[in-house]
Amino acid sequence: MKIGVIGGGQLGRMLALAGTPLGMNFAFLDPAPDACAAPLGEHLRADYGDQDHLRQLADEVDLVTFEFESVPAETVAFLSQFVPVYPSADALRIARDRLFEKSLFRDLGIPTPAFADILSQADLDAAVASIGLPAVLKTRTLGYDGKGQKVLRTAADVVDTFAELGSVPCLLEGFVPFTGEVSLIAVRGRDGETRFYPLVHNTHDSGILRLSVASDAHPLQALAEDYVGRVLDKLDYVGVMAFEFFEVDGGLKANEIAPRVHNSGHWTIEGAECSQFENHLRAVAGLPLGSTAKVGESAMLNFIGEVPDVARTVAIDDCHLHHYGKAFKVGRKVGHATLRCHDMPSLRAKIAEVEALIAG
Amino acid sequence: MKIGVIGGGQLGRMLALAGTPLGMNFAFLDPAPDACAAPLGEHLRADYGDQDHLRQLADEVDLVTFEFESVPAETVAFLSQFVPVYPSADALRIARDRLFEKSLFRDLGIPTPAFADILSQADLDAAVASIGLPAVLKTRTLGYDGKGQKVLRTAADVVDTFAELGSVPCLLEGFVPFTGEVSLIAVRGRDGETRFYPLVHNTHDSGILRLSVASDAHPLQALAEDYVGRVLDKLDYVGVMAFEFFEVDGGLKANEIAPRVHNSGHWTIEGAECSQFENHLRAVAGLPLGSTAKVGESAMLNFIGEVPDVARTVAIDDCHLHHYGKAFKVGRKVGHATLRCHDMPSLRAKIAEVEALIAG
Repeated sequence: MKIGVIGGGQLGRMLALAGTPLGMNFAFLDPAPDACAAPLGEHLRADYGDQDHLRQLADEVDLVTFEFESVPAETVAFLSQFVPVYPSADALRIARDRLFEKSLFRDLGIPTPAFADILSQADLDAAVASIGLPAVLKTRTLGYDGKGQKVLRTAADVVDTFAELGSVPCLLEGFVPFTGEVSLIAVRGRDGETRFYPLVHNTHDSGILRLSVASDAHPLQALAEDYVGRVLDKLDYVGVMAFEFFEVDGGLKANEIAPRVHNSGHWTIEGAECSQFENHLRAVAGLPLGSTAKVGESAMLNFIGEVPDVARTVAIDDCHLHHYGKAFKVGRKVGHATLRCHDMPSLRAKIAEVEALIAG
Repeated sequence: MKIGVIGGGQLGRMLALAGTPLGMNFAFLDPAPDACAAPLGEHLRADYGDQDHLRQLADEVDLVTFEFESVPAETVAFLSQFVPVYPSADALRIARDRLFEKSLFRDLGIPTPAFADILSQADLDAAVASIGLPAVLKTRTLGYDGKGQKVLRTAADVVDTFAELGSVPCLLEGFVPFTGEVSLIAVRGRDGETRFYPLVHNTHDSGILRLSVASDAHPLQALAEDYVGRVLDKLDYVGVMAFEFFEVDGGLKANEIAPRVHNSGHWTIEGAECSQFENHLRAVAGLPLGSTAKVGESAMLNFIGEVPDVARTVAIDDCHLHHYGKAFKVGRKVGHATLRCHDMPSLRAKIAEVEALIAG
């Protein structure tokens, strides 16, 4: 079976590493000459709107999936004429737009921060008056890793901010006094079977994920599964979805979804019986899903900007290096480490060890 | 770091899957147009004696390693002029010739079946008179998976047998009434550090490995490590070596070595903290070695001739499929499954389940 992937970054790379042992081959459509998934499959170097290459991809593969949600709707629609596409155009349409996403949460009874659609500075001023400060203004589409958003704390922060974010459609979100950020990685098969990984505690810095720790019997696991299950079933979703929540007052408020494998699920490569990458491929290929149970206690630390010295990294017991083969650049995710230990105290000690390595 | 691999079969394929997350790239020299490692790196399609392509490989990579031991000595000598080669020419020279191998065992005080060098039918007749029957005649070089050998049970079996095996240099080995076959996978770094995986029980059928089960605190572990350590140190070996033993009268007799990653170590991908593939690459690259400790209880079942239906295979809990992407052909190793369970009784049950699947 040959899988087409729109995007050829580290997620595509890890999909190929997981799918090759299932007998799958891969083709990546990515305009970047140095797409880091390219060494693991065929690389169609073309823009995402290039219909000739999209058609070529569709003709070559058995199905198409995505590495990121900001794929143009036209691309998805075009591909869907010729080849099965998972997740569906509808799921991508909703996940790529914060307004659609938040509206879906509201419609399904899933708690989410107060929000308002912002199409002008006047909209913003009115919404701030209604929702209050602090609040966060985010572009409705194309934001990632803290890009395309601004925290508004005082009235002065609001002035001209719509123009500052590019005068594009935005969403204003009320600030949530959260005590923690967690994500739930879920997978749903073509037949509707759904499985959930354990909730993951995430720590961000400057909007970029730094640390994910897989939880052990989290008290909010069942609640999170209930919320995510509603979205998956509503969208008749196929594949892996990541769902980010704020922990607030002992409950959960939905932040956002990613209709794809997700950074906060990278620990599953070593830390779960079947990784998010293999389970995404099983789902889209119509295969039975794999076990989402943990193997030991796991955490993931991102390498941002550069990968620490390889010899020093692999010298740490229980540490599994994932080097993305990308050029090092400030603020860029270029690799991660998974730690898998027998117990939580050992895991905490190892996290400190890798953090010290990163700090240099 | 770019690694050159002589041979582009499933061992090269699994080396690339293990090395890519370490940030390594791969080039495979293999004359086969459909070499199954090719999708995971550069494929130099050329004969092993093709000096132009060997030189190209040497120029492109940081070091060269091998997927099989039958590499022509001239190939190794030629490459060694331009690029580091691991394991060394000397280790390959010994491992590729059963006479050199058995002589090394004897010199190092490692018990091994009685043997005699056979260069003619007269040699064979004399050796049979001395060693007795039953015995096994094997070509000194190029044998694998039971090919290039014949079991001699009666005097009639001996007649013309030297010609039958091609009138090439052979070794006669006395038959050993073994109670089991075990292998020890070892890895030795450039600095001499050595680690051993748990002993593996192997079951063969028609000379082809069918089942490997990683043992739990095997009583002969220390003895096997002592024997294998002698060989590794004597050869100043770098990389993974597999050492096959017969279990005889509660002790061990050395059968043969493979100077490479080995089929009986495939279970380590899921079943050990660091797989034989990653450890081989760590060793040859001069990186610290990884832990050889088990993760749960593991076994490996080979898929010979064909891979069972993928959906039915991955539907088995605790079963990890490794499809080599090769054309199916009678007697050919085309994939394997690793089973990783919490305890031995569960493992036994799962082995039966996969065996039933294979039996179809």
